[in-house]
Amino acid sequence: MGELYLVGMGPGDLPGLTLAAKEALEGAEVVIGYSTYIKLLEEMGLLVGKEVVRKGMTEELDRAEEALERALAGQRVALVSGGDPGIYGMAAPVLELMEERGFRRVDGGVGLPGRFAQGGREVLLKVIPGVTAANAVASLLGSPLAHDTCLISLSDLLTPWPLIERRLHAAGQGDFVVVLYNPQSKRRTWQLGKSAEILLQYRPPETPAALVKSAYRKREEVTLTTLEGLKEAEAGMLTTVVIGNRHSRFFEGTLLTPRGYGLKYDLDTGEPLPGETPGLSLRRRDG
Amino acid sequence: MGELYLVGMGPGDLPGLTLAAKEALEGAEVVIGYSTYIKLLEEMGLLVGKEVVRKGMTEELDRAEEALERALAGQRVALVSGGDPGIYGMAAPVLELMEERGFRRVDGGVGLPGRFAQGGREVLLKVIPGVTAANAVASLLGSPLAHDTCLISLSDLLTPWPLIERRLHAAGQGDFVVVLYNPQSKRRTWQLGKSAEILLQYRPPETPAALVKSAYRKREEVTLTTLEGLKEAEAGMLTTVVIGNRHSRFFEGTLLTPRGYGLKYDLDTGEPLPGETPGLSLRRRDG
Repeated sequence: MGELYLVGMGPGDLPGLTLAAKEALEGAEVVIGYSTYIKLLEEMGLLVGKEVVRKGMTEELDRAEEALERALAGQRVALVSGGDPGIYGMAAPVLELMEERGFRRVDGGVGLPGRFAQGGREVLLKVIPGVTAANAVASLLGSPLAHDTCLISLSDLLTPWPLIERRLHAAGQGDFVVVLYNPQSKRRTWQLGKSAEILLQYRPPETPAALVKSAYRKREEVTLTTLEGLKEAEAGMLTTVVIGNRHSRFFEGTLLTPRGYGLKYDLDTGEPLPGETPGLSLRRRDG
Repeated sequence: MGELYLVGMGPGDLPGLTLAAKEALEGAEVVIGYSTYIKLLEEMGLLVGKEVVRKGMTEELDRAEEALERALAGQRVALVSGGDPGIYGMAAPVLELMEERGFRRVDGGVGLPGRFAQGGREVLLKVIPGVTAANAVASLLGSPLAHDTCLISLSDLLTPWPLIERRLHAAGQGDFVVVLYNPQSKRRTWQLGKSAEILLQYRPPETPAALVKSAYRKREEVTLTTLEGLKEAEAGMLTTVVIGNRHSRFFEGTLLTPRGYGLKYDLDTGEPLPGETPGLSLRRRDG
Protein backbone atom coordinates (compact mmCIF):
# COMPACT_ATOMS: atom_id res chain seq x y z
CA MET A 1 0.00 0.00 0.00
CA GLY A 2 1.27 3.47 -0.93
CA GLU A 3 1.54 6.29 1.59
CA LEU A 4 0.82 9.98 1.14
CA TYR A 5 2.11 12.42 3.74
CA LEU A 6 0.93 16.03 3.53
CA VAL A 7 3.86 17.70 5.25
CA GLY A 8 3.84 21.18 6.81
CA MET A 9 7.24 22.84 6.35
CA GLY A 10 6.67 25.63 8.86
CA PRO A 11 8.20 29.03 8.06
CA GLY A 12 10.86 27.55 5.77
CA ASP A 13 14.06 27.10 7.76
CA LEU A 14 15.33 23.79 9.13
CA PRO A 15 14.82 24.67 12.84
CA GLY A 16 11.19 25.50 12.06
CA LEU A 17 10.43 21.93 10.91
CA THR A 18 8.83 19.58 13.39
CA LEU A 19 10.62 16.31 14.11
CA ALA A 20 7.62 14.53 12.50
CA ALA A 21 7.94 16.57 9.31
CA LYS A 22 11.67 15.91 9.07
CA GLU A 23 11.12 12.18 9.58
CA ALA A 24 8.37 12.05 6.92
CA LEU A 25 10.63 13.82 4.42
CA GLU A 26 13.54 11.53 5.23
CA GLY A 27 11.34 8.46 4.77
CA ALA A 28 9.78 9.59 1.48
CA GLU A 29 10.79 8.15 -1.90
CA VAL A 30 9.27 11.08 -3.78
CA VAL A 31 8.91 14.70 -2.65
CA ILE A 32 6.42 16.88 -4.51
CA GLY A 33 5.92 20.62 -4.05
CA TYR A 34 5.85 24.18 -5.29
CA SER A 35 9.31 25.02 -6.61
CA THR A 36 10.07 27.61 -3.88
CA TYR A 37 9.51 25.03 -1.13
CA ILE A 38 11.51 22.38 -2.99
CA LYS A 39 14.41 24.84 -3.18
CA LEU A 40 14.25 25.49 0.57
CA LEU A 41 14.27 21.74 1.28
CA GLU A 42 17.26 21.30 -1.04
CA GLU A 43 19.14 23.99 0.92
CA MET A 44 18.36 22.05 4.11
CA GLY A 45 19.93 18.95 2.53
CA LEU A 46 16.74 16.93 2.91
CA LEU A 47 16.29 15.85 -0.72
CA VAL A 48 19.53 13.95 -1.35
CA GLY A 49 18.90 10.72 -3.29
CA LYS A 50 15.17 11.34 -3.67
CA GLU A 51 12.98 11.75 -6.68
CA VAL A 52 11.75 15.35 -6.72
CA VAL A 53 8.73 16.78 -8.55
CA ARG A 54 8.53 20.57 -8.60
CA LYS A 55 5.48 22.43 -9.85
CA GLY A 56 4.43 26.05 -10.37
CA MET A 57 2.52 28.02 -7.76
CA THR A 58 -0.87 27.82 -9.46
CA GLU A 59 -0.62 24.11 -10.20
CA GLU A 60 -2.16 22.97 -6.92
CA LEU A 61 -4.41 20.37 -8.47
CA ASP A 62 -1.58 18.99 -10.59
CA ARG A 63 0.44 18.53 -7.42
CA ALA A 64 -2.47 16.80 -5.67
CA GLU A 65 -3.11 14.58 -8.67
CA GLU A 66 0.51 13.54 -9.10
CA ALA A 67 0.87 12.83 -5.38
CA LEU A 68 -2.27 10.68 -5.25
CA GLU A 69 -1.39 8.79 -8.44
CA ARG A 70 2.08 7.91 -7.17
CA ALA A 71 0.79 6.85 -3.75
CA LEU A 72 -1.85 4.64 -5.41
CA ALA A 73 0.99 3.11 -7.43
CA GLY A 74 2.64 2.09 -4.15
CA GLN A 75 5.19 4.84 -3.56
CA ARG A 76 5.88 6.64 -0.27
CA VAL A 77 5.13 10.26 -1.16
CA ALA A 78 5.64 13.55 0.73
CA LEU A 79 3.59 16.45 -0.65
CA VAL A 80 4.88 19.62 1.02
CA SER A 81 3.10 22.85 1.95
CA GLY A 82 4.66 26.01 3.35
CA GLY A 83 3.52 26.57 6.95
CA ASP A 84 0.70 24.13 7.69
CA PRO A 85 -1.04 21.94 5.05
CA GLY A 86 -4.40 22.74 6.65
CA ILE A 87 -4.14 26.56 6.41
CA TYR A 88 -4.46 27.58 2.74
CA GLY A 89 -2.27 24.53 2.00
CA MET A 90 -2.52 21.18 0.20
CA ALA A 91 -4.87 19.28 2.57
CA ALA A 92 -8.08 20.59 0.98
CA PRO A 93 -7.11 20.14 -2.70
CA VAL A 94 -6.08 16.53 -1.97
CA LEU A 95 -9.32 15.68 -0.15
CA GLU A 96 -11.46 17.49 -2.74
CA LEU A 97 -9.79 15.53 -5.51
CA MET A 98 -10.24 12.25 -3.62
CA GLU A 99 -13.93 13.08 -3.24
CA GLU A 100 -14.28 13.87 -6.94
CA ARG A 101 -12.51 10.64 -7.89
CA GLY A 102 -14.71 8.50 -5.65
CA PHE A 103 -12.18 7.32 -3.06
CA ARG A 104 -13.74 5.19 -0.32
CA ARG A 105 -12.56 4.73 3.22
CA VAL A 106 -11.51 1.14 3.97
CA ASP A 107 -10.34 1.21 7.59
CA GLY A 108 -13.71 2.08 9.13
CA GLY A 109 -12.02 4.90 11.06
CA VAL A 110 -12.76 8.53 11.73
CA GLY A 111 -10.42 11.42 10.96
CA LEU A 112 -6.82 10.99 9.80
CA PRO A 113 -4.57 9.08 9.34
CA GLY A 114 -6.86 6.89 7.24
CA ARG A 115 -6.79 4.19 4.56
CA PHE A 116 -8.68 4.94 1.36
CA ALA A 117 -9.22 2.91 -1.83
CA GLN A 118 -9.92 3.73 -5.44
CA GLY A 119 -10.03 1.37 -8.42
CA GLY A 120 -8.78 -1.57 -6.36
CA ARG A 121 -5.72 0.29 -5.09
CA GLU A 122 -5.12 1.66 -1.60
CA VAL A 123 -3.40 4.64 -0.01
CA LEU A 124 -2.64 5.65 3.56
CA LEU A 125 -3.20 9.41 4.03
CA LYS A 126 -1.70 11.42 6.89
CA VAL A 127 -1.41 15.16 7.52
CA ILE A 128 1.65 16.38 9.43
CA PRO A 129 0.88 19.83 10.82
CA GLY A 130 3.38 22.68 10.80
CA VAL A 131 3.88 26.17 12.21
CA THR A 132 1.67 28.40 10.05
CA ALA A 133 2.62 31.95 9.02
CA ALA A 134 0.36 33.50 11.69
CA ASN A 135 2.35 31.87 14.48
CA ALA A 136 5.76 32.32 12.85
CA VAL A 137 5.13 36.00 12.26
CA ALA A 138 3.69 36.52 15.75
CA SER A 139 6.85 35.09 17.30
CA LEU A 140 8.88 37.81 15.55
CA LEU A 141 6.54 40.59 16.68
CA GLY A 142 6.02 39.85 20.39
CA SER A 143 2.50 38.71 21.29
CA PRO A 144 0.07 40.15 18.73
CA LEU A 145 -2.24 37.09 18.68
CA ALA A 146 -2.70 36.66 22.41
CA HIS A 147 -6.43 37.16 22.08
CA ASP A 148 -9.14 35.97 19.66
CA THR A 149 -7.84 36.13 16.10
CA CYS A 150 -9.11 35.79 12.50
CA LEU A 151 -7.10 34.50 9.58
CA ILE A 152 -8.27 35.99 6.27
CA SER A 153 -6.75 35.43 2.83
CA LEU A 154 -7.05 38.43 0.51
CA SER A 155 -6.67 36.26 -2.58
CA ASP A 156 -9.84 36.51 -4.66
CA LEU A 157 -8.73 33.85 -7.15
CA LEU A 158 -11.09 31.27 -5.62
CA THR A 159 -13.20 33.41 -3.29
CA PRO A 160 -15.53 36.19 -4.42
CA TRP A 161 -14.31 39.59 -3.17
CA PRO A 162 -17.72 40.47 -1.61
CA LEU A 163 -17.32 37.53 0.78
CA ILE A 164 -13.81 38.68 1.73
CA GLU A 165 -15.20 42.18 2.42
CA ARG A 166 -17.97 40.70 4.51
CA ARG A 167 -15.40 38.87 6.62
CA LEU A 168 -13.34 42.03 7.13
CA HIS A 169 -16.47 43.80 8.38
CA ALA A 170 -17.21 40.88 10.71
CA ALA A 171 -13.63 40.96 12.02
CA GLY A 172 -14.05 44.67 12.71
CA GLN A 173 -17.38 44.21 14.47
CA GLY A 174 -15.98 41.43 16.63
CA ASP A 175 -12.77 43.36 17.46
CA PHE A 176 -10.70 40.35 16.38
CA VAL A 177 -6.95 40.58 15.86
CA VAL A 178 -6.60 40.06 12.09
CA VAL A 179 -3.91 38.16 10.19
CA LEU A 180 -3.99 38.73 6.43
CA TYR A 181 -2.53 35.98 4.25
CA ASN A 182 -1.74 36.74 0.56
CA PRO A 183 -2.19 40.49 1.12
CA GLN A 184 -0.87 41.58 -2.29
CA SER A 185 0.53 40.28 -5.56
CA LYS A 186 1.53 41.89 -8.84
CA ARG A 187 -2.04 41.46 -10.04
CA ARG A 188 -3.84 42.20 -6.76
CA THR A 189 -2.72 45.66 -5.72
CA TRP A 190 -5.68 47.43 -4.07
CA GLN A 191 -7.03 44.72 -1.71
CA LEU A 192 -4.74 45.51 1.23
CA GLY A 193 -5.56 49.24 1.18
CA LYS A 194 -9.25 48.46 0.87
CA SER A 195 -9.05 46.04 3.83
CA ALA A 196 -7.45 48.74 5.96
CA GLU A 197 -10.23 51.15 5.00
CA ILE A 198 -12.88 48.64 6.09
CA LEU A 199 -11.21 47.98 9.45
CA LEU A 200 -10.80 51.77 9.97
CA GLN A 201 -14.59 51.90 10.24
CA TYR A 202 -14.23 49.95 13.51
CA ARG A 203 -10.77 50.81 14.93
CA PRO A 204 -8.74 54.01 15.38
CA PRO A 205 -6.13 54.92 12.72
CA GLU A 206 -3.33 54.47 15.29
CA THR A 207 -4.24 50.79 15.89
CA PRO A 208 -0.91 48.91 15.87
CA ALA A 209 -0.20 46.83 12.77
CA ALA A 210 2.80 45.07 11.24
CA LEU A 211 4.12 43.61 8.01
CA VAL A 212 6.48 40.65 8.17
CA LYS A 213 8.21 39.56 4.99
CA SER A 214 9.99 36.22 4.57
CA ALA A 215 9.77 35.24 8.26
CA TYR A 216 12.70 32.96 9.22
CA ARG A 217 14.10 33.11 5.67
CA LYS A 218 16.77 35.15 3.92
CA ARG A 219 15.81 38.82 3.63
CA GLU A 220 13.43 38.61 6.62
CA GLU A 221 11.91 42.05 7.25
CA VAL A 222 9.77 43.19 10.19
CA THR A 223 7.96 46.52 9.83
CA LEU A 224 5.78 48.06 12.53
CA THR A 225 3.10 50.44 11.33
CA THR A 226 -0.50 51.43 12.05
CA LEU A 227 -3.86 50.57 10.52
CA GLU A 228 -3.75 53.97 8.80
CA GLY A 229 -0.26 53.18 7.50
CA LEU A 230 -1.51 49.98 5.85
CA LYS A 231 -3.57 52.05 3.40
CA GLU A 232 -0.37 52.89 1.51
CA ALA A 233 1.80 49.90 2.49
CA GLU A 234 3.75 47.73 0.05
CA ALA A 235 3.36 44.04 0.77
CA GLY A 236 3.82 41.17 -1.72
CA MET A 237 3.54 37.41 -1.94
CA LEU A 238 5.99 36.71 0.88
CA THR A 239 4.42 39.12 3.38
CA THR A 240 1.96 38.44 6.19
CA VAL A 241 0.07 41.38 7.73
CA VAL A 242 -1.08 41.60 11.36
CA ILE A 243 -3.58 44.16 12.67
CA GLY A 244 -4.10 44.49 16.42
CA ASN A 245 -7.43 44.78 18.23
CA ARG A 246 -8.60 47.80 20.28
CA HIS A 247 -6.40 46.76 23.22
CA SER A 248 -3.19 46.06 21.25
CA ARG A 249 -0.26 48.39 21.82
CA PHE A 250 3.42 48.81 21.04
CA PHE A 251 5.91 48.02 23.80
CA GLU A 252 9.58 48.76 23.17
CA GLY A 253 9.57 47.67 19.54
CA THR A 254 7.18 44.76 20.04
CA LEU A 255 3.46 44.41 19.30
CA LEU A 256 1.55 43.39 22.41
CA THR A 257 -2.09 42.28 22.62
CA PRO A 258 -2.94 41.66 26.27
CA ARG A 259 -4.42 38.23 26.98
CA GLY A 260 -7.40 39.56 28.89
CA TYR A 261 -9.22 42.76 29.54
CA GLY A 262 -12.31 44.48 30.76
CA LEU A 263 -14.48 46.12 28.15
CA LYS A 264 -12.49 49.38 27.98
CA TYR A 265 -14.45 50.57 24.95
CA ASP A 266 -18.04 50.55 23.89
CA LEU A 267 -17.63 48.34 20.85
CA ASP A 268 -20.39 50.12 18.94
CA THR A 269 -19.30 53.71 19.50
CA GLY A 270 -15.60 53.24 20.21
CA GLU A 271 -15.99 55.48 23.30
CA PRO A 272 -14.13 54.56 26.50
CA LEU A 273 -16.51 53.03 29.03
CA PRO A 274 -16.89 54.48 32.52
CA GLY A 275 -15.62 52.29 35.33
CA GLU A 276 -13.20 50.27 33.22
CA THR A 277 -10.62 48.21 35.07
CA PRO A 278 -7.11 49.07 33.93
CA GLY A 279 -4.51 46.38 34.40
CA LEU A 280 -7.12 43.67 34.65
CA SER A 281 -5.04 41.24 32.68
CA LEU A 282 -2.18 41.56 35.15
CA ARG A 283 -4.39 40.60 38.04
CA ARG A 284 -3.55 37.16 39.36
CA ARG A 285 -6.31 34.71 38.52
CA ASP A 286 -5.70 32.74 41.66
CA GLY A 287 -5.34 35.87 43.86
CA MET B 1 23.44 38.27 29.97
CA GLY B 2 20.60 35.90 30.76
CA GLU B 3 18.39 34.40 28.07
CA LEU B 4 14.66 33.75 28.14
CA TYR B 5 13.17 31.43 25.52
CA LEU B 6 9.38 31.19 25.30
CA VAL B 7 9.09 27.73 23.81
CA GLY B 8 6.05 26.35 21.99
CA MET B 9 5.68 22.62 22.69
CA GLY B 10 3.18 21.91 19.92
CA PRO B 11 0.51 19.29 20.65
CA GLY B 12 2.57 17.55 23.33
CA ASP B 13 4.37 14.61 21.77
CA LEU B 14 8.07 14.55 20.81
CA PRO B 15 7.49 14.40 17.01
CA GLY B 16 5.32 17.53 17.29
CA LEU B 17 8.21 19.63 18.64
CA THR B 18 10.10 21.81 16.18
CA LEU B 19 13.86 21.31 15.93
CA ALA B 20 14.23 24.86 17.31
CA ALA B 21 12.08 24.06 20.35
CA LYS B 22 14.03 20.87 21.07
CA GLU B 23 17.32 22.72 20.80
CA ALA B 24 16.14 25.52 23.11
CA LEU B 25 15.02 22.97 25.70
CA GLU B 26 18.29 21.07 25.45
CA GLY B 27 20.26 24.28 25.88
CA ALA B 28 18.29 25.56 28.86
CA GLU B 29 19.59 25.42 32.44
CA VAL B 30 16.10 25.89 33.89
CA VAL B 31 12.77 24.80 32.43
CA ILE B 32 9.61 26.44 33.81
CA GLY B 33 6.04 25.48 33.01
CA TYR B 34 2.58 24.32 33.96
CA SER B 35 2.90 20.91 35.61
CA THR B 36 1.10 19.03 32.78
CA TYR B 37 3.60 20.27 30.19
CA ILE B 38 6.56 19.56 32.47
CA LYS B 39 5.31 15.99 32.83
CA LEU B 40 5.09 15.59 29.03
CA LEU B 41 8.66 16.91 28.62
CA GLU B 42 9.86 14.49 31.30
CA GLU B 43 8.31 11.60 29.38
CA MET B 44 10.18 12.79 26.28
CA GLY B 45 13.43 12.61 28.27
CA LEU B 46 14.18 16.29 27.69
CA LEU B 47 14.58 17.39 31.31
CA VAL B 48 17.43 15.14 32.46
CA GLY B 49 19.96 17.09 34.55
CA LYS B 50 18.01 20.33 34.44
CA GLU B 51 16.49 22.45 37.13
CA VAL B 52 12.71 22.25 36.74
CA VAL B 53 10.08 24.65 38.09
CA ARG B 54 6.50 23.43 37.82
CA LYS B 55 3.54 25.67 38.56
CA GLY B 56 -0.24 25.35 38.68
CA MET B 57 -2.44 26.18 35.73
CA THR B 58 -3.69 29.51 37.04
CA GLU B 59 -0.25 30.71 38.09
CA GLU B 60 0.62 32.31 34.74
CA LEU B 61 2.02 35.46 36.24
CA ASP B 62 4.08 33.53 38.76
CA ARG B 63 5.61 31.58 35.89
CA ALA B 64 6.35 34.77 33.95
CA GLU B 65 7.82 36.43 37.04
CA GLU B 66 10.04 33.51 37.95
CA ALA B 67 11.27 33.14 34.36
CA LEU B 68 12.14 36.83 34.05
CA GLU B 69 13.84 36.97 37.46
CA ARG B 70 16.05 33.99 36.67
CA ALA B 71 16.96 35.31 33.22
CA LEU B 72 17.86 38.70 34.73
CA ALA B 73 20.07 36.81 37.20
CA GLY B 74 21.99 35.40 34.21
CA GLN B 75 20.43 31.98 33.71
CA ARG B 76 19.40 30.41 30.38
CA VAL B 77 15.67 29.82 30.88
CA ALA B 78 13.03 27.98 28.81
CA LEU B 79 9.46 28.91 29.70
CA VAL B 80 7.18 26.41 27.96
CA SER B 81 3.66 26.79 26.57
CA GLY B 82 1.48 24.06 25.12
CA GLY B 83 0.96 24.63 21.38
CA ASP B 84 2.28 28.08 20.50
CA PRO B 85 3.36 30.69 23.10
CA GLY B 86 1.60 33.39 21.06
CA ILE B 87 -1.87 31.74 21.02
CA TYR B 88 -3.35 31.95 24.53
CA GLY B 89 0.18 31.12 25.77
CA MET B 90 2.99 32.74 27.79
CA ALA B 91 4.15 35.43 25.32
CA ALA B 92 1.60 38.03 26.41
CA PRO B 93 1.94 37.60 30.22
CA VAL B 94 5.74 37.93 29.89
CA LEU B 95 5.56 41.10 27.78
CA GLU B 96 2.81 42.59 29.96
CA LEU B 97 4.91 41.99 33.05
CA MET B 98 8.00 43.50 31.39
CA GLU B 99 5.95 46.58 30.52
CA GLU B 100 4.66 46.91 34.08
CA ARG B 101 8.17 46.53 35.50
CA GLY B 102 9.61 49.19 33.17
CA PHE B 103 11.91 47.08 31.01
CA ARG B 104 13.66 49.11 28.29
CA ARG B 105 14.93 47.90 24.96
CA VAL B 106 18.71 48.20 24.62
CA ASP B 107 19.49 46.82 21.15
CA GLY B 108 17.65 49.49 19.16
CA GLY B 109 15.87 46.74 17.24
CA VAL B 110 12.32 46.02 16.20
CA GLY B 111 10.41 42.82 17.00
CA LEU B 112 11.98 39.75 18.60
CA PRO B 113 14.50 38.42 19.47
CA GLY B 114 15.45 41.52 21.46
CA ARG B 115 17.64 42.66 24.33
CA PHE B 116 15.91 44.38 27.23
CA ALA B 117 17.22 45.89 30.48
CA GLN B 118 15.78 46.50 33.91
CA GLY B 119 17.57 47.73 37.04
CA GLY B 120 21.00 47.52 35.39
CA ARG B 121 20.51 43.87 34.34
CA GLU B 122 19.87 42.54 30.84
CA VAL B 123 17.93 39.72 29.22
CA LEU B 124 17.68 38.35 25.69
CA LEU B 125 14.07 37.44 24.85
CA LYS B 126 13.09 35.08 22.03
CA VAL B 127 9.80 33.37 21.15
CA ILE B 128 10.00 29.93 19.52
CA PRO B 129 6.70 29.26 17.77
CA GLY B 130 4.95 25.90 17.86
CA VAL B 131 2.07 24.03 16.25
CA THR B 132 -1.04 25.41 17.96
CA ALA B 133 -4.11 23.30 18.81
CA ALA B 134 -6.04 24.60 15.78
CA ASN B 135 -3.48 23.14 13.38
CA ALA B 136 -2.86 19.94 15.35
CA VAL B 137 -6.57 19.22 15.57
CA ALA B 138 -7.16 20.08 11.90
CA SER B 139 -4.52 17.55 10.85
CA LEU B 140 -6.50 14.81 12.62
CA LEU B 141 -9.79 15.86 11.00
CA GLY B 142 -8.86 16.31 7.34
CA SER B 143 -8.97 19.92 6.11
CA PRO B 144 -11.49 21.83 8.25
CA LEU B 145 -9.49 25.11 8.27
CA ALA B 146 -8.82 25.39 4.55
CA HIS B 147 -10.67 28.69 4.43
CA ASP B 148 -10.84 31.84 6.59
CA THR B 149 -10.92 30.85 10.26
CA CYS B 150 -11.49 32.44 13.69
CA LEU B 151 -9.91 31.30 16.93
CA ILE B 152 -12.09 32.09 19.95
CA SER B 153 -11.43 31.17 23.57
CA LEU B 154 -14.58 30.52 25.60
CA SER B 155 -12.79 31.21 28.89
CA ASP B 156 -14.40 34.20 30.55
CA LEU B 157 -11.84 34.36 33.36
CA LEU B 158 -10.12 37.38 31.78
CA THR B 159 -12.60 38.35 29.05
CA PRO B 160 -16.16 39.55 29.68
CA TRP B 161 -18.71 37.08 28.30
CA PRO B 162 -20.57 39.79 26.31
CA LEU B 163 -17.41 40.33 24.22
CA ILE B 164 -17.11 36.56 23.59
CA GLU B 165 -20.76 36.50 22.48
CA ARG B 166 -20.15 39.45 20.20
CA ARG B 167 -17.29 37.58 18.55
CA LEU B 168 -19.41 34.48 18.04
CA HIS B 169 -22.03 36.61 16.30
CA ALA B 170 -19.33 38.19 14.14
CA ALA B 171 -17.94 34.75 13.25
CA GLY B 172 -21.44 33.71 12.23
CA GLN B 173 -22.03 36.83 10.13
CA GLY B 174 -18.70 36.37 8.36
CA ASP B 175 -19.24 32.63 7.79
CA PHE B 176 -15.84 31.90 9.31
CA VAL B 177 -14.75 28.41 10.24
CA VAL B 178 -14.58 28.59 14.07
CA VAL B 179 -12.06 26.95 16.40
CA LEU B 180 -13.05 27.10 20.07
CA TYR B 181 -10.25 26.94 22.63
CA ASN B 182 -11.10 26.22 26.29
CA PRO B 183 -14.67 25.20 25.43
CA GLN B 184 -15.59 23.84 28.85
CA SER B 185 -14.28 23.28 32.33
CA LYS B 186 -15.75 22.02 35.59
CA ARG B 187 -16.77 25.57 36.41
CA ARG B 188 -17.76 26.71 32.89
CA THR B 189 -20.43 24.30 31.71
CA TRP B 190 -22.95 26.27 29.60
CA GLN B 191 -20.66 28.32 27.32
CA LEU B 192 -20.22 25.68 24.60
CA GLY B 193 -23.96 25.08 24.25
CA LYS B 194 -24.60 28.82 24.21
CA SER B 195 -21.95 29.27 21.49
CA ALA B 196 -23.63 26.62 19.35
CA GLU B 197 -26.98 28.39 19.80
CA ILE B 198 -25.48 31.67 18.61
CA LEU B 199 -23.88 30.11 15.52
CA LEU B 200 -27.17 28.28 14.76
CA GLN B 201 -28.63 31.72 14.04
CA TYR B 202 -26.29 31.84 11.00
CA ARG B 203 -25.70 28.21 9.92
CA PRO B 204 -27.87 25.11 9.46
CA PRO B 205 -28.09 22.56 12.32
CA GLU B 206 -26.36 19.94 10.14
CA THR B 207 -23.21 22.10 9.74
CA PRO B 208 -20.27 19.72 10.30
CA ALA B 209 -18.43 20.09 13.60
CA ALA B 210 -15.91 18.09 15.60
CA LEU B 211 -14.46 17.67 19.07
CA VAL B 212 -10.86 16.57 19.42
CA LYS B 213 -9.60 15.62 22.86
CA SER B 214 -5.90 15.24 23.73
CA ALA B 215 -4.65 15.52 20.13
CA TYR B 216 -1.37 13.58 19.71
CA ARG B 217 -1.41 12.51 23.37
CA LYS B 218 -2.53 9.42 25.24
CA ARG B 219 -6.30 8.97 25.13
CA GLU B 220 -6.64 11.01 21.91
CA GLU B 221 -10.28 11.10 20.85
CA VAL B 222 -11.77 12.41 17.60
CA THR B 223 -15.55 12.90 17.49
CA LEU B 224 -17.46 14.12 14.44
CA THR B 225 -20.77 15.82 15.13
CA THR B 226 -22.90 18.72 13.91
CA LEU B 227 -23.48 22.26 15.10
CA GLU B 228 -26.79 21.04 16.56
CA GLY B 229 -24.94 18.20 18.31
CA LEU B 230 -22.63 20.68 20.05
CA LYS B 231 -25.58 22.01 22.08
CA GLU B 232 -25.42 18.89 24.26
CA ALA B 233 -21.76 17.91 23.77
CA GLU B 234 -19.35 17.11 26.58
CA ALA B 235 -15.99 18.79 26.12
CA GLY B 236 -13.46 19.61 28.86
CA MET B 237 -10.10 21.27 29.35
CA LEU B 238 -8.24 19.05 26.88
CA THR B 239 -10.74 19.42 24.03
CA THR B 240 -10.67 21.73 21.03
CA VAL B 241 -13.88 22.27 19.05
CA VAL B 242 -14.08 22.96 15.31
CA ILE B 243 -17.19 24.23 13.52
CA GLY B 244 -17.26 24.28 9.72
CA ASN B 245 -18.53 27.10 7.51
CA ARG B 246 -21.50 26.91 5.11
CA HIS B 247 -19.40 25.02 2.56
CA SER B 248 -17.84 22.46 4.91
CA ARG B 249 -18.87 18.84 4.50
CA PHE B 250 -18.01 15.33 5.67
CA PHE B 251 -16.08 13.11 3.30
CA GLU B 252 -15.49 9.50 4.29
CA GLY B 253 -14.90 10.20 7.96
CA THR B 254 -13.02 13.45 7.41
CA LEU B 255 -14.12 17.08 7.76
CA LEU B 256 -13.50 18.98 4.54
CA THR B 257 -13.78 22.74 3.99
CA PRO B 258 -13.09 23.47 0.32
CA ARG B 259 -10.38 26.03 -0.30
CA GLY B 260 -12.46 28.18 -2.61
CA TYR B 261 -16.03 28.61 -3.71
CA GLY B 262 -18.58 30.72 -5.43
CA LEU B 263 -21.19 32.34 -3.22
CA LYS B 264 -23.49 29.33 -3.08
CA TYR B 265 -25.65 30.93 -0.41
CA ASP B 266 -27.05 34.36 0.22
CA LEU B 267 -25.23 35.05 3.47
CA ASP B 268 -28.08 37.07 4.90
CA THR B 269 -30.94 34.69 4.17
CA GLY B 270 -29.09 31.38 3.93
CA GLU B 271 -30.94 30.69 0.65
CA PRO B 272 -29.06 29.04 -2.24
CA LEU B 273 -28.18 31.61 -4.89
CA PRO B 274 -29.26 31.14 -8.50
CA GLY B 275 -26.45 30.60 -10.98
CA GLU B 276 -23.95 29.26 -8.46
CA THR B 277 -20.90 27.48 -9.83
CA PRO B 278 -20.60 24.00 -8.35
CA GLY B 279 -17.12 22.53 -8.28
CA LEU B 280 -15.52 25.94 -8.62
CA SER B 281 -12.72 25.07 -6.24
CA LEU B 282 -11.72 22.10 -8.38
CA ARG B 283 -11.30 24.28 -11.42
CA ARG B 284 -7.64 24.65 -12.32
CA ARG B 285 -6.53 28.19 -11.62
CA ASP B 286 -4.12 28.10 -14.55
CA GLY B 287 -6.66 26.38 -16.81
